[in-house]
Amino acid sequence: MDKATLEAYYTDNQERIMEEWKTLLKFESISTDPAYNEKCTECATWLVDHINQMGMQAELLETTSKPVVYAEYKAENAKKTVVFYGHYDVQPVDPLEDWETPPFEPTLRGSRLYARGAQDNKGQAFYVLKAVEMLLKHNALNCNLKLFLEGEEECGSEGITKAIPEWTERLQGDVLMVCDTGAVAAGVPTVTMGLRGIVHVSVRIDGINHDLHSGSHGGMVKNPAMEMARLMSTIHDENGNILVEGFYEGVTDIAPEDRKLANAAPFSNEEYKRQIGVAPTGGEADFTPVERKGFRPTVEINGFHSGYGGPGHKTIIPSYAEAKLSCRLVGKQDPQHCLDALLAHLKQHAPSDLNMTFEDPTVGGPAILLSSTSPLIKEAASILETVTGQNPVYSWEGGSIPVVASLAKTAGAEPLLVGFGLEEDRIHAPNESFDINQFKLGFLYASLMLASF
Amino acid sequence: MDKATLEAYYTDNQERIMEEWKTLLKFESISTDPAYNEKCTECATWLVDHINQMGMQAELLETTSKPVVYAEYKAENAKKTVVFYGHYDVQPVDPLEDWETPPFEPTLRGSRLYARGAQDNKGQAFYVLKAVEMLLKHNALNCNLKLFLEGEEECGSEGITKAIPEWTERLQGDVLMVCDTGAVAAGVPTVTMGLRGIVHVSVRIDGINHDLHSGSHGGMVKNPAMEMARLMSTIHDENGNILVEGFYEGVTDIAPEDRKLANAAPFSNEEYKRQIGVAPTGGEADFTPVERKGFRPTVEINGFHSGYGGPGHKTIIPSYAEAKLSCRLVGKQDPQHCLDALLAHLKQHAPSDLNMTFEDPTVGGPAILLSSTSPLIKEAASILETVTGQNPVYSWEGGSIPVVASLAKTAGAEPLLVGFGLEEDRIHAPNESFDINQFKLGFLYASLMLASF
Repeated sequence: MDKATLEAYYTDNQERIMEEWKTLLKFESISTDPAYNEKCTECATWLVDHINQMGMQAELLETTSKPVVYAEYKAENAKKTVVFYGHYDVQPVDPLEDWETPPFEPTLRGSRLYARGAQDNKGQAFYVLKAVEMLLKHNALNCNLKLFLEGEEECGSEGITKAIPEWTERLQGDVLMVCDTGAVAAGVPTVTMGLRGIVHVSVRIDGINHDLHSGSHGGMVKNPAMEMARLMSTIHDENGNILVEGFYEGVTDIAPEDRKLANAAPFSNEEYKRQIGVAPTGGEADFTPVERKGFRPTVEINGFHSGYGGPGHKTIIPSYAEAKLSCRLVGKQDPQHCLDALLAHLKQHAPSDLNMTFEDPTVGGPAILLSSTSPLIKEAASILETVTGQNPVYSWEGGSIPVVASLAKTAGAEPLLVGFGLEEDRIHAPNESFDINQFKLGFLYASLMLASF
Repeated sequence: MDKATLEAYYTDNQERIMEEWKTLLKFESISTDPAYNEKCTECATWLVDHINQMGMQAELLETTSKPVVYAEYKAENAKKTVVFYGHYDVQPVDPLEDWETPPFEPTLRGSRLYARGAQDNKGQAFYVLKAVEMLLKHNALNCNLKLFLEGEEECGSEGITKAIPEWTERLQGDVLMVCDTGAVAAGVPTVTMGLRGIVHVSVRIDGINHDLHSGSHGGMVKNPAMEMARLMSTIHDENGNILVEGFYEGVTDIAPEDRKLANAAPFSNEEYKRQIGVAPTGGEADFTPVERKGFRPTVEINGFHSGYGGPGHKTIIPSYAEAKLSCRLVGKQDPQHCLDALLAHLKQHAPSDLNMTFEDPTVGGPAILLSSTSPLIKEAASILETVTGQNPVYSWEGGSIPVVASLAKTAGAEPLLVGFGLEEDRIHAPNESFDINQFKLGFLYASLMLASF
């Protein structure tokens, strides 16, 4: 299977592939909001049918949360078993009014397909499915393949985290292939060398029966919004270091070769500011932006809501305040320990005379870190060079795929993280899109990678 | 005009009065949201018609914002001119889902009429209108009367603040009567001795082009929600003192007789907690709750919004954060100076590399403080005793009626602040209501007070 054959196949089938991809993107599979449970199941069912038509044996594996789309292919005389991990769920779409075209009506503008999930992860999972389909049509898939597409990656993977130990035998494999990561720039091949772990919690401060008149009560009661602000301000010092006691346990020093590779990837403060709007000056002052993203933990506010937010003024003391927090973890940080440490910190600094509760404290998963000297990584690098004509860069992305660490452990498999997402894809934000040229690179890479086993 | 005659009149007319009051409450005269401009005008126009039918000469006075409902009555051989101030605009109604019955469908449950504005200020203004109507019917109004009902009390009174100097001649009077305050408990007559001044501003921190993935960018950029929280936490010290430089200029010491009268009003921490849900432990630690409410300034967050607020988690760094602030002012604090000092403080502590802007900085008005030895206050106390059979209490409410100070100055009139609102009326909150027994007390007081001039 050479690159020219693959390109010819892609050109011949591109129109059909695009239509199928759009069909997948129309499912409103938002996992974090229970109102969309049925949409998630519809999406999973469509995938089962589609994968069966491709020539694999697909089924739904039920969990206590969303079902997993699972499929197997057994090759004769297979030397390797590859487990492919992806997810069919997507992030919420708000603020809806910021979308130029509706999030679940996929629209091609220029070389980009716009839709929620266009890239993360429906787009990237779909080029792998199309690579598998092509290899099966050409009898060119020589490894055993297991597809594992979860439906709760965007909301903590609680159901499958519980279920994975029961599936230990089924999931055994040599390689855990994942295409849910990014490339540093369009056309630039990128191998992801690490993912951060993640934990979440929502904090609520309440106790006041109803919003109060800020004249009749201002100066009488503690203001929940002000107290939440004060509480949040205790999390970091003025240099961006995290003040939560015990939180840094398990954070490892950056290996010199990792530091070198990480800093070799193209990055400039000016280009970052041009793309993002602000300079990369957050986080711990003692590290460079790339180091902070790849090798350092965070505690971030994802949302803070209290009181009046409409036009004009409303002179109230809000009856409650709510903040959603998430932490990214690195090295050997233990997620449960970090979550416990954060909650202990918040309790220690909680305002007296108001009520503080934690909602939905969730352990996503730990961090993972790969080795740049592994033969698997070297083979992937070689294939990426074939596909793009360029040497790959090695990237520590900063994101999390909570289940990858536990899946790799259960499967006994070595993770392989190569993806083609770009910053301008705006995953998790309005107007998410995926460049169809990057989609094609993904198809070429996945075809050659799977054919190599 | 004695109390028994008034009570008989009220009983005979109660049904009609209730229906008219409900009609007034149906107008959605929310002043802070421009979407309701037309509803405000409709309400004002209805009032003009209603007051004309009562036998006064009513008209709309246009301002750059909402119109003022203005009416005059000239008595033969009048010794005094009374200016009555009220407002026909109301607060927003969100969160709408918390209302048991719709805010603009007035509903009587038990002895309470539920609607937005039921008390503040449509209800309290309306018992005065009904007192005037009764006096006119009986040829018992012996003073000149000027009614001045504004439509922007709940959004800063900007239009009339600009217009009042032009109306100096028209507004001349001896007494500025206001019924927009509360009583310390049901049936307990209360004279309000002071109002706090007020200024507002909204603070916005942005600069990030769109919500960012908290994995790909966590630790890279300053988080606007976290930075806003940190900024808000710089406003007070750990004892609730305000750290804004120059803010306390003009705050006067509490006069010993005021302190004595204020602390004579019934107040207990336990009863407060029972009503409000939390103990009165906010504000400056060096003062009692009653002193903090009546005689001390505040800076409060009225709203704080940033990022995701829906169900579950969304792992973003929000692109912006917004906080709405208001300050209550006391003594001789100059509102413009206090607002300037607050903005300077925020600028001084603003995060670098993000963008901070101020929206809608508004000077409401200064504080006012009355004298307990004035003959007018003594007369009001005597009438309140007649109406209720109890000695009145003297209250420093903590609220603001921004325009009262400037109106009193322009009119050359002495303010008279007596009202019958109760804490359980929940003004500014969902399920606002007014006790019809308190409404009746208001009618009796207003009738005897106006007849006394």
